[in-house]
Amino acid sequence: MKLFGYWRSSATYRVRIALELKGLEYDYEPVNLLKGEQHSPAHLKRNPQGLVPAFETKEGHLLTQSIAIIEYLEERYPETPLLPANAAGRAKARAIAATIACEAQPFMNLRIQKYLKDECDFDAEAMSAWLNRWTGNAMTSVETLIGDGATFCAGDKPGMADAFLVPQVFGALRFGIDLSKTPRIIEIYERCCKLDPFIRAHPQNQPDAVPA
Amino acid sequence: MKLFGYWRSSATYRVRIALELKGLEYDYEPVNLLKGEQHSPAHLKRNPQGLVPAFETKEGHLLTQSIAIIEYLEERYPETPLLPANAAGRAKARAIAATIACEAQPFMNLRIQKYLKDECDFDAEAMSAWLNRWTGNAMTSVETLIGDGATFCAGDKPGMADAFLVPQVFGALRFGIDLSKTPRIIEIYERCCKLDPFIRAHPQNQPDAVPA
Repeated sequence: MKLFGYWRSSATYRVRIALELKGLEYDYEPVNLLKGEQHSPAHLKRNPQGLVPAFETKEGHLLTQSIAIIEYLEERYPETPLLPANAAGRAKARAIAATIACEAQPFMNLRIQKYLKDECDFDAEAMSAWLNRWTGNAMTSVETLIGDGATFCAGDKPGMADAFLVPQVFGALRFGIDLSKTPRIIEIYERCCKLDPFIRAHPQNQPDAVPA
Repeated sequence: MKLFGYWRSSATYRVRIALELKGLEYDYEPVNLLKGEQHSPAHLKRNPQGLVPAFETKEGHLLTQSIAIIEYLEERYPETPLLPANAAGRAKARAIAATIACEAQPFMNLRIQKYLKDECDFDAEAMSAWLNRWTGNAMTSVETLIGDGATFCAGDKPGMADAFLVPQVFGALRFGIDLSKTPRIIEIYERCCKLDPFIRAHPQNQPDAVPA
């Protein structure tokens, strides 16, 4: 199987974490977003949105959208599950993942930030207000969903929700979003970052990474 | 089981379609977004984001996020499945749902539109450009994902992807988004709208609907 992605893409990072948590071997083919490779005919065949990631299964099927790819991995490789065993726990993990994917990340996305700067004359102050309002709001909701006494987002093992949380926090720190009101998120982020699968999945450890 | 929602909320509409497709009986408790009932202490206990929908299971668990609720229903009530039987079909259905939920709907959301109007001085032209650019782009991707010769989004029966598509098109028509370049989507939307489960789930047929 093969992952087509970009070292710093949040959605690619989610899939890398899921693959590493499951201990699956995969090939990684970088798609350089700065060089516009996502708009190449070869990549548009893999992902008609011209986005990353795309994922090629062992059987040669091409999948898109990190949520769909990770649900696929969970069904196809059920050993080392990424979702809790009970229905309510599974719903909680998916709700955290969906809050990040639908309420936080879209507003932090680089192409949206670029549009707001270039087309709508957002200055640094307007951008900071936008990012903190929308991704900040969603992260506060995630903090509440996680609840008290959590080791990871949805149980005592890292899983799907953590695969969404860690890239989101990585991006939020990059863009200077205030996370001081979400201490559980910071704690879980720091705990995850020390684990081997998260270290292997880290953007800075990818072959296409630009040294910091 | 009980659905807490708002007649015109896109995410509530998705869950209603899923419940109706599965033929499940449920109670419906309106949360009036115009009166701010989503911020009431009672509703914040159900959904800490102050959003709709919230869903109470038979066992009394409270779930949030339409994706998580629908995946829960699919696992808990597997009769009349909303996802195809094969892995690639399931991934396709989930990719369509995720494209709508993560790439289209966030930018069409009323609270985002309100922020852009009130805080960023978007006029009608800027709003139209924003909506058509981002939700329009995502709908073009959905059109490609659906592919040729489709009866419904992902197979010959309506399912999860259609439960996301129909509310998205309903909202897009309301906000005047150009869908002329996505004829497959329009065709599937019109086909779905004639079916009883979709009729029962339609915003205009809810007890809290404001007559058109």
